[in-house]
Amino acid sequence: MENAECKMTVSEEIELKGHIIDSIILPRVLDAIMDMEGDFEILSLDVGKKKTDISTARMVIRGKDHEHLDKLLDELQMLGAVLPVKNVETEVAPRDKILPDKFYSTTHHPTYVRIKDRWMRAKDIEMDCTIVIEDERAICKRQGLVKKGDRVVVGHSGVRVEPPERSRKPMDIFGFMQSDVSPEKPINSYIVDLAKEMNQIRENNGKIIVVAGPAIVHTGADKSLAELVRMGYVQVLFGGNALAVMDIEKQLFGTSLGMDEHTGLVLERGYKSHLVAINEIWKVGSIKDAVKRGIIKEGIMYECVKCEVPYVLAGSIRDDGPLPEVITDVMEAQDEMRKYIQDADMVIMTASMLHSIATGNLLPSWVKTVSIDINPYVVTRLQDRGTSQALGIVSDPGMFLPRLVEELKKLE
Amino acid sequence: MENAECKMTVSEEIELKGHIIDSIILPRVLDAIMDMEGDFEILSLDVGKKKTDISTARMVIRGKDHEHLDKLLDELQMLGAVLPVKNVETEVAPRDKILPDKFYSTTHHPTYVRIKDRWMRAKDIEMDCTIVIEDERAICKRQGLVKKGDRVVVGHSGVRVEPPERSRKPMDIFGFMQSDVSPEKPINSYIVDLAKEMNQIRENNGKIIVVAGPAIVHTGADKSLAELVRMGYVQVLFGGNALAVMDIEKQLFGTSLGMDEHTGLVLERGYKSHLVAINEIWKVGSIKDAVKRGIIKEGIMYECVKCEVPYVLAGSIRDDGPLPEVITDVMEAQDEMRKYIQDADMVIMTASMLHSIATGNLLPSWVKTVSIDINPYVVTRLQDRGTSQALGIVSDPGMFLPRLVEELKKLE
Amino acid sequence: MENAECKMTVSEEIELKGHIIDSIILPRVLDAIMDMEGDFEILSLDVGKKKTDISTARMVIRGKDHEHLDKLLDELQMLGAVLPVKNVETEVAPRDKILPDKFYSTTHHPTYVRIKDRWMRAKDIEMDCTIVIEDERAICKRQGLVKKGDRVVVGHSGVRVEPPERSRKPMDIFGFMQSDVSPEKPINSYIVDLAKEMNQIRENNGKIIVVAGPAIVHTGADKSLAELVRMGYVQVLFGGNALAVMDIEKQLFGTSLGMDEHTGLVLERGYKSHLVAINEIWKVGSIKDAVKRGIIKEGIMYECVKCEVPYVLAGSIRDDGPLPEVITDVMEAQDEMRKYIQDADMVIMTASMLHSIATGNLLPSWVKTVSIDINPYVVTRLQDRGTSQALGIVSDPGMFLPRLVEELKKLE
Amino acid sequence: MENAECKMTVSEEIELKGHIIDSIILPRVLDAIMDMEGDFEILSLDVGKKKTDISTARMVIRGKDHEHLDKLLDELQMLGAVLPVKNVETEVAPRDKILPDKFYSTTHHPTYVRIKDRWMRAKDIEMDCTIVIEDERAICKRQGLVKKGDRVVVGHSGVRVEPPERSRKPMDIFGFMQSDVSPEKPINSYIVDLAKEMNQIRENNGKIIVVAGPAIVHTGADKSLAELVRMGYVQVLFGGNALAVMDIEKQLFGTSLGMDEHTGLVLERGYKSHLVAINEIWKVGSIKDAVKRGIIKEGIMYECVKCEVPYVLAGSIRDDGPLPEVITDVMEAQDEMRKYIQDADMVIMTASMLHSIATGNLLPSWVKTVSIDINPYVVTRLQDRGTSQALGIVSDPGMFLPRLVEELKKLE
Repeated sequence: MENAECKMTVSEEIELKGHIIDSIILPRVLDAIMDMEGDFEILSLDVGKKKTDISTARMVIRGKDHEHLDKLLDELQMLGAVLPVKNVETEVAPRDKILPDKFYSTTHHPTYVRIKDRWMRAKDIEMDCTIVIEDERAICKRQGLVKKGDRVVVGHSGVRVEPPERSRKPMDIFGFMQSDVSPEKPINSYIVDLAKEMNQIRENNGKIIVVAGPAIVHTGADKSLAELVRMGYVQVLFGGNALAVMDIEKQLFGTSLGMDEHTGLVLERGYKSHLVAINEIWKVGSIKDAVKRGIIKEGIMYECVKCEVPYVLAGSIRDDGPLPEVITDVMEAQDEMRKYIQDADMVIMTASMLHSIATGNLLPSWVKTVSIDINPYVVTRLQDRGTSQALGIVSDPGMFLPRLVEELKKLE
Repeated sequence: MENAECKMTVSEEIELKGHIIDSIILPRVLDAIMDMEGDFEILSLDVGKKKTDISTARMVIRGKDHEHLDKLLDELQMLGAVLPVKNVETEVAPRDKILPDKFYSTTHHPTYVRIKDRWMRAKDIEMDCTIVIEDERAICKRQGLVKKGDRVVVGHSGVRVEPPERSRKPMDIFGFMQSDVSPEKPINSYIVDLAKEMNQIRENNGKIIVVAGPAIVHTGADKSLAELVRMGYVQVLFGGNALAVMDIEKQLFGTSLGMDEHTGLVLERGYKSHLVAINEIWKVGSIKDAVKRGIIKEGIMYECVKCEVPYVLAGSIRDDGPLPEVITDVMEAQDEMRKYIQDADMVIMTASMLHSIATGNLLPSWVKTVSIDINPYVVTRLQDRGTSQALGIVSDPGMFLPRLVEELKKLE
Repeated sequence: MENAECKMTVSEEIELKGHIIDSIILPRVLDAIMDMEGDFEILSLDVGKKKTDISTARMVIRGKDHEHLDKLLDELQMLGAVLPVKNVETEVAPRDKILPDKFYSTTHHPTYVRIKDRWMRAKDIEMDCTIVIEDERAICKRQGLVKKGDRVVVGHSGVRVEPPERSRKPMDIFGFMQSDVSPEKPINSYIVDLAKEMNQIRENNGKIIVVAGPAIVHTGADKSLAELVRMGYVQVLFGGNALAVMDIEKQLFGTSLGMDEHTGLVLERGYKSHLVAINEIWKVGSIKDAVKRGIIKEGIMYECVKCEVPYVLAGSIRDDGPLPEVITDVMEAQDEMRKYIQDADMVIMTASMLHSIATGNLLPSWVKTVSIDINPYVVTRLQDRGTSQALGIVSDPGMFLPRLVEELKKLE
Repeated sequence: MENAECKMTVSEEIELKGHIIDSIILPRVLDAIMDMEGDFEILSLDVGKKKTDISTARMVIRGKDHEHLDKLLDELQMLGAVLPVKNVETEVAPRDKILPDKFYSTTHHPTYVRIKDRWMRAKDIEMDCTIVIEDERAICKRQGLVKKGDRVVVGHSGVRVEPPERSRKPMDIFGFMQSDVSPEKPINSYIVDLAKEMNQIRENNGKIIVVAGPAIVHTGADKSLAELVRMGYVQVLFGGNALAVMDIEKQLFGTSLGMDEHTGLVLERGYKSHLVAINEIWKVGSIKDAVKRGIIKEGIMYECVKCEVPYVLAGSIRDDGPLPEVITDVMEAQDEMRKYIQDADMVIMTASMLHSIATGNLLPSWVKTVSIDINPYVVTRLQDRGTSQALGIVSDPGMFLPRLVEELKKLE
């Protein structure tokens, strides 16, 4: 180890600022350096004495060689480290969809790019994309949309990231570190808090996106989701073919994927109802038309149409049909979802692993995110995939939505 | 295989009666014979032509030798097969806790023993025990309680078992085969049905046992369980040390195992509250005394004391303390639970793997049993361990109990 | 109930044949009639006396009205009931993708259609599709591929389904009813049996499809999957973008989604390696080209290219990139998977809910299917969605594949 | 908030020392103060400049009143804060099992008590107990063992706790923060590391405790556990009645709880084998006697007896029988387990929630702890219950043990 340290001759100075100690930004930086077998020396640490004070740290980072140091700086920058102030560097994309080798890859935190000595906030930020400079504006783009000749940010000069800090406010449900997925949480209190937060957003004409899977229909919580739409708590709905088909099937036949809505009894021929529901919608052309013609008279999709809540139905390879409005090209579907993401105030993900992770991938870190699933793997996976801001609740969405509606009604 | 069959020369005749085809008793009998590599010949099959009719089958079972045939008959008898009518045979237990080699081991179905040419129903039936004949009465006893000289039933003559048949009634939640543990069930309808069933039992002055684990307190569903007690829906409570301590801790400090009841925040020192709660009860001697002296003024245990609902707190090796009323000897605790089991109308198991499986082991098959847990392994395990009558619901008990109370209130 | 029965005046005669009692076909038929509140009378039941004998039942089914009877017959037909022999009826599809109202919806069992007094086996059978008659041939088609003017089978006349029967052979792992998802199974014996079965298929130049998710790479089981390909045990690979990217990322950087392959340590910047891997493949055009040019030198995809094992990479909305060969249109991806399905001998599904269920939807019931996942919900869901033939194993694919390779090597 | 701070007039000075920044001790201290609505001022922060340097912080903590400050100090002390050096204070236990009101409750970290101006390390430390001073020695005792007149430590003066710091060594599997329970980990690398660590312990004549549940037998991993014993990798075995009975049942009948060890087939009568196995052991008196007389010739328990590996079989309320050597009083069983805990080098917990959590409760934080379970709830629960040092692995123990044995054999 000592030997290893001796060899560290390449170095760079970085700065950290904010609640870097108690928001564990500084510890994470030191941890990362040690994990990556780099070295550091703290030049100065000016610690906020009181809890509202800001701290500042300056330190020298040392790597084994330039490549190693680059990796270290890459990592530290993602954690909020600021490098000596320089303008951003770009290289030109050699072909469509091809990035320059040293492209900068984004986090989902607020990101600033220094162009002509001014920090500009990158637009449409989302994780695992790249930043393109157009007319002195920085725009976050997914790889597939980068065109030949685009000026793509490379290296780590002139980029600043602001990871979220620990809330200074008295505690709220989004203020904690929610690192685990235990079902042993005061779920009944969380619902009260969540209802208040949602109510506040509605008061402010904010925007709540709900991501829902078909278990919502199976469990009978579709009535509650329809009510949420009616009450004005859903501004956009993300789902898949299954959600819409089962909702429509239930309105037409009282079953979901052939399962009786009261008894849970599944008949073999029940699957047919699923197919008939799809056929009925194809006959009239769209869900909207089915509502207009009075074919569907209730349910989640009905309320969305009635309340003019836009919905994005993204296709998947396990789809039957699918319905006419389902977007079968997955990248098109993603881009359609992107249209609603950036100004969202809250996202509630429930009973869908696929759509929840997909939405999580698109979300900036400042959007309040709640993921409710009975499957702890969904919540874990969401966090493994980087949606670290999500409040993960392991509970039964089929019970959660009815209870949530109950709490929201108390606030009317 | 053909050869194997040739060798089957030992045989016995059995009879099956009832809704043996659609209650899949006959198929299970044929399956078992084939699984065990025995052979059969159907002598007669008199099939009920209409759905209310009874069917009867007579068949010859053949085994490779006497031991093989014995095993076959053992298995078939458990499935409801009746052997040629003979009186029961017994052997004397050679020492305390030692059974004769060929002891009969019980199922949890109604069981009749033929003594002096009369069928007597065995008392206190429970699975995996033995039957002792005392004064021409048949009593089900666990191995550990068998005394030297007890006349223990051996072999399979003179014993008749009545496995449950498929309900002929229009469907109710206990009528289905609930073989799987999917969370994709109409939980919101199940709750309505369960509430009705519970209400019916209360009307008839029946008996409901609730088995609860500490997650009930963590999730905030303790208020609902307390309310169930108050409403008269709990006649006996089974739990462990943790349930009682956390309930008391919450009344005294607003935390459960140190977790704040509103925020879910866990402090290191929080565990201390757990220990203080135990100490407080030891200081006054018992939960009952703590209620009497006004130290505990609310909660699950408070309501049990106030409403004179008996509780059994069974110890486990992970206990802190434990509280004075916890029974630390596990066999004593089992026997205490046994006192409340036989005349129960319903058992609701929630959020406890240990206590649910333990209770399941003691339950006769005619007791309506519901198991609600967020962990699918609990429900699966319960069925793996033979509590096949249990309606297994994979849902969040923390939401389930509040919703259940809501439904029950509609019936008041 | 008695009244209800009085009203049943519409009736039809059906026949059941085969091991209908112990394969629980008859019980399921009687069950379904009672669940659906129909009525029946058994006209004759000729029971096979010995275990190799065939049984035959003839019965009258009664419904409340024609619609009710139709639903009953629909259901019973799916369970294997044969209606009085008539030729099949068809109606013409009014428009592309629009089915006639009474279209017949398929099961995944062998299905025969009676055309001009001859039973013809339907081609390309798969569940939840429809049957089109072309030039006296019956072809199973998904709704989306039905064209205006196609002659679509309607009603239930002239269709015969053969649900699988219980194996008469001594037991093998595919012979049992695997209804539950318990992890308490003799997994180490299952692996031995599975290895033998796979070896047998390879001997017979059969076809094994492996469906794999990215956890295979995370857990380090990618080495084992690559070895399976090399050993000749994989004839087709189904996966998604993530599987291929992580496999390639690991070859290039020793990480999977930024997680170190040895330590499990995840760096923030690690996700970048994921994007770089995608970029590298875009630079050369395809995985095949990357292998050819020596950019990828090991791993799952490398072995597939080297051993000329075809792969289908189906896109999903959570994809980064995706890679050039990923099919982003989900219905196109499904149809590409269909090309490999019908003559498969075995499908091994592992560590992917999405791709496993999608594959399950396409599989005929006679294909030996094994699903291994650590998440019991995956196995449950697969069975909820109708892939009832699947042997569901709740285990860790990351350990399962290495153990499987070990067992297969013993058979070399 | 500002107002709240004005009211904070009671204060105390504390000190923190060590790798307090990157081991996140300081951040956790600041977090805790804010969570508990206290206030702080940092007096000095002397930061280690290089990664091997030590940091020191001194700060003033302010509370609303004495009780609030006490709670704050309690919490901070558990996190490693040192209060101004004073001698410890004690009060006398008023009765057996009754603690003085302000008793100090222990963590599972190394703990020092200042007696007559000397720091003495507390003996037998374990979480959630109390410290009794006997003859100037500090002994950790569970509440139930405290006797009237014992001098019990109260308050927080004169107590110092040393929470574990982040390892400075290059990474090993026990060095990481293992906060999540994802199955997406490089399990195949972990096994290699674990095998090395175990081998090292065996070289040093160290002590490994294995905690095992009955699924080990069901899955066929019993052979591997028996081999671990034989290879000298198990110095103590903790389990329950079920583990021993199923192991014995398998040796006698080839089944575990009636499930065939090869096919997984469960017969109704199979449960009887379980009871017969218990009866057989009662007939000879103990497992040891059964081995001596040649009744048991293989298996886990056999190897333990042969290799003189002590075992503790702790009873639970779901036990059948139980076997003669099972300790039915849970507190006695705990105390028996305690005898083996303090000098353990490693504990491997596998396939048992009950016994794992119970063992976790007893473990000092410096014991290397690995928990392997297929049920993520077990791993989560273990950490919820405070066994934060445990490396939690969500995998199938039935596969894990065979793979572990394989790796260990490579090191022979």
